[in-house]
Amino acid sequence: MKRNLEVCFSPALFHNFENKDAIVVIIDVFRASSAICTAFSNGASKIIPVAEIHEAREYKTKGYLVAAERDGYVLDFADFGNSPFNFTRDKVEGKTIVYSTTNGTRIIELASSSHRTAIGTFINISAITDWLINQDRDVILFCAGWKDKFNLEDAICAGAIAEKLLKSSSFITICDSAIAATDLWKVAAPHPLNYIEKAAQRSRLRDKGLDDCIEYCMTFDLTDSIPVLNEGVLKDLSILA
Amino acid sequence: MKRNLEVCFSPALFHNFENKDAIVVIIDVFRASSAICTAFSNGASKIIPVAEIHEAREYKTKGYLVAAERDGYVLDFADFGNSPFNFTRDKVEGKTIVYSTTNGTRIIELASSSHRTAIGTFINISAITDWLINQDRDVILFCAGWKDKFNLEDAICAGAIAEKLLKSSSFITICDSAIAATDLWKVAAPHPLNYIEKAAQRSRLRDKGLDDCIEYCMTFDLTDSIPVLNEGVLKDLSILA
Repeated sequence: MKRNLEVCFSPALFHNFENKDAIVVIIDVFRASSAICTAFSNGASKIIPVAEIHEAREYKTKGYLVAAERDGYVLDFADFGNSPFNFTRDKVEGKTIVYSTTNGTRIIELASSSHRTAIGTFINISAITDWLINQDRDVILFCAGWKDKFNLEDAICAGAIAEKLLKSSSFITICDSAIAATDLWKVAAPHPLNYIEKAAQRSRLRDKGLDDCIEYCMTFDLTDSIPVLNEGVLKDLSILA
Repeated sequence: MKRNLEVCFSPALFHNFENKDAIVVIIDVFRASSAICTAFSNGASKIIPVAEIHEAREYKTKGYLVAAERDGYVLDFADFGNSPFNFTRDKVEGKTIVYSTTNGTRIIELASSSHRTAIGTFINISAITDWLINQDRDVILFCAGWKDKFNLEDAICAGAIAEKLLKSSSFITICDSAIAATDLWKVAAPHPLNYIEKAAQRSRLRDKGLDDCIEYCMTFDLTDSIPVLNEGVLKDLSILA
């Protein structure tokens, strides 16, 4: 039987999508999903998502490696922010990372009522889609958006994943957002980097001098890592499996 | 100075868009926006939106013409539901209509904090866009969606309006939803009726035998009517101006 594919464009819409039997894939292309995949690709052992700044600070005093940002800016006590370029092998291999981002933790909490929560983005797109095709589960692609708004980069990434899932003929969709995401990806696919020039977050990152990782975050298949949520902590699926 | 154009894809996202100086255009292609424009086109004098079924019933006992539906079904005490084909000249000319739809009233309430609230859709697209271009105001295109979800028909209609506004060079946008809507409209524009075959609401209307008005609702420029909200009541702008 074909499985159901849905796309949710914003955390503020997620209440319409709750499905305890589904796998939820969190997509936050710029930059949390890309950073988390990079961390596991470089051997991080686990990532503890924390919501509040004071929690992150407490972990820091206990000696943890802490990645923490708000609106793209690194918090002063943190080891680094959420550029994927921070999560290098020499820094993260074998380490537990405490990670606090603008809205990442809230999204993880929303998604965690599902059967399983995973992190997907362009840099692990083949790994995540192949894995989703091999599970016997409905799938919800959950775009992080920006301050509750729709954003283009997460929508086209959802579209790229959706296109692969629908082509596999294991999935159907009756979800308008999934159709829209797929159509937007078709528009973007010939030149994704040019397309994303139009995106608001692209401009925000450029204004803050944080746009050095755009091309990296939009590259397909830099890693096979599939980060999944396990008892409140992110781990690489290969360790759990 | 260029004015700002934004698109909101769902009532659940509207809190991100509040701008008291903007004109908000409510787009509910299937079928409320199309029905309301048709009513004024056929000479209705005003439309009173009511939220609760019991309010609509009370108005009925006072002798008002009542249009009331829930999820596409006509309420038993009402004169008719919200197919635009109900709002014929012989029924509505010179009349006050009490109108209660699944989520129309909630959307009108959300939008009413703005400078002005208008109703836009394909059947009045040139009238509404020409008027918007001539106002000195930011514009928010507010898609009604379906039960708080994104929907394709309202998104591509927003895209069609956005395309016209942006071409006028009176507007700019830094809103990802506006860019996405415009791109979706570009995909849909060569064959809008074929495109909308994919939409979930298209299937829902077909399943309920309510799809006879799809082609009508997707036709450009059947009327010059611009319904606007005035002290809680919808009126034709030409009467107010």
